[in-house]
Amino acid sequence: MFSKSLCSALRGVNSYLIKEVLKCHVNNMPNIFRYHHCMMLPESVSQSPDFFFRQLLDYESSTYTYLLADTTTKEAVIIDPVLEHAERDTQLIKDLGLNLKYAMNTHMHADHVTGTGLLKKLLPGTKSLISKSSGAVADIYVQADFDVQFGRHKLTVRSTPGHTNGCVTFVSYEQGIAFTGDALLIRGCGRTDFQEGNPKTLYNSVHNQIFTLPDTFKLYPAHDYKGQTSTTVGEEKHYNPRLTKPLDEFIKIMENLNLPHPKMIDRAVPANRVCGLHDVP
Amino acid sequence: MFSKSLCSALRGVNSYLIKEVLKCHVNNMPNIFRYHHCMMLPESVSQSPDFFFRQLLDYESSTYTYLLADTTTKEAVIIDPVLEHAERDTQLIKDLGLNLKYAMNTHMHADHVTGTGLLKKLLPGTKSLISKSSGAVADIYVQADFDVQFGRHKLTVRSTPGHTNGCVTFVSYEQGIAFTGDALLIRGCGRTDFQEGNPKTLYNSVHNQIFTLPDTFKLYPAHDYKGQTSTTVGEEKHYNPRLTKPLDEFIKIMENLNLPHPKMIDRAVPANRVCGLHDVP
Repeated sequence: MFSKSLCSALRGVNSYLIKEVLKCHVNNMPNIFRYHHCMMLPESVSQSPDFFFRQLLDYESSTYTYLLADTTTKEAVIIDPVLEHAERDTQLIKDLGLNLKYAMNTHMHADHVTGTGLLKKLLPGTKSLISKSSGAVADIYVQADFDVQFGRHKLTVRSTPGHTNGCVTFVSYEQGIAFTGDALLIRGCGRTDFQEGNPKTLYNSVHNQIFTLPDTFKLYPAHDYKGQTSTTVGEEKHYNPRLTKPLDEFIKIMENLNLPHPKMIDRAVPANRVCGLHDVP
Repeated sequence: MFSKSLCSALRGVNSYLIKEVLKCHVNNMPNIFRYHHCMMLPESVSQSPDFFFRQLLDYESSTYTYLLADTTTKEAVIIDPVLEHAERDTQLIKDLGLNLKYAMNTHMHADHVTGTGLLKKLLPGTKSLISKSSGAVADIYVQADFDVQFGRHKLTVRSTPGHTNGCVTFVSYEQGIAFTGDALLIRGCGRTDFQEGNPKTLYNSVHNQIFTLPDTFKLYPAHDYKGQTSTTVGEEKHYNPRLTKPLDEFIKIMENLNLPHPKMIDRAVPANRVCGLHDVP
């Protein structure tokens, strides 16, 4: 078959060139071929042996929480913790002999109460961290280009608003990974129909701040509802059913999702504005 | 505090020696200290850039599925696929341009119907693989020390019966990872009160076949019910609440779990005996 033999012929060739070559053909192909012309599976970045990574999950809200650490200094950060799992996460942090430096959020969530406040109580010394434009209270406020340091590792902040005004993506260039919050989900994206949601802003955030990372970078979102746990920049640039569309089509899609009002929003947003301590005893 | 200063003094010392030193102290410690004397967080093995790894999840049965591949040859294997997700998994395999060589199972599951049969239909050429002693039908039967090859990568079979007679653990020594099925779960283990379950056999399997791997090896189980996605040999040797106990105590724990009969067993076991094709249209 044409696309298969082309793929095989192009193996090993620079992926930018491949994309340019395929573009010409793809534009003249029927839709069924467009999405299956084959994606080059790039070699991934190997994680450093002194970088600790652990993904955790909340079944109720399908939220992913990430615990990262420098295995030498034991300094750790947790991204998007969930209130109901603060004790599980605390136990794991203690088991591993880690010191939690920051409990940080990619944005002010509407679908679950953050575990930040309770983690600060359970692990004294932990500081909360969120973007200034989130509107939430925290010990540390970040903005674009800020480095969140833990041991010798760091996460660099990219501003990715659109789902909310304060959404950020945390990037580790050395490990080749990024935590996209609700800006970019696996084959999807965060909704833009409440809080300060804006589809045009979200589209530009993803295209300018996430799709500009190398194709090999692994992406870890704040949620997935189909049991997928991660993706890559390359995969989403090829197969994201919304964000591969032109802007006007994307806006139409986002304006016609007709999603139900998030059931937790009335409890979660006020609680998350104050670190999840709104109605925590 | 004693245990904290000991840990700090021992940082960098060979972990086997540390264990021996701690053993003397730990045996004389009250229980609360035993489990929090501090675990050395070892450096992990870096995954090769040409090794593809993706964890997938079934919310219904809390089952983990793993897609692995050689990014150069595109040969892939899937471990413990779930029937209801065969189309999701097929789409991902196609998106990534992979060729699925084996749909393999760590054992004959009782809590979900395997996706093996349907994957074989959706991706012709795929072969099913399971241990001979599982009693299930498959294209390829494996036993201890068998290498499951895909591209230049391989998974070596370790026999870890006890949850069922046919349970195996798949180990990649190069990547420092192992897929433990239901033999060892995160801070837990598979139940031993149905099929050919036997707590003594399970205890010996875990101690002789899994705890003998290096502490740094990452372990990926077939299930987790608390939103944990992986663990390490070191963690489980220190913190597994069942398998750190002496054998007689472990047997007592396992005999008194009083778990409900698995709700899927009457459908799942007959279906899984024939690759999940029992009542699939």
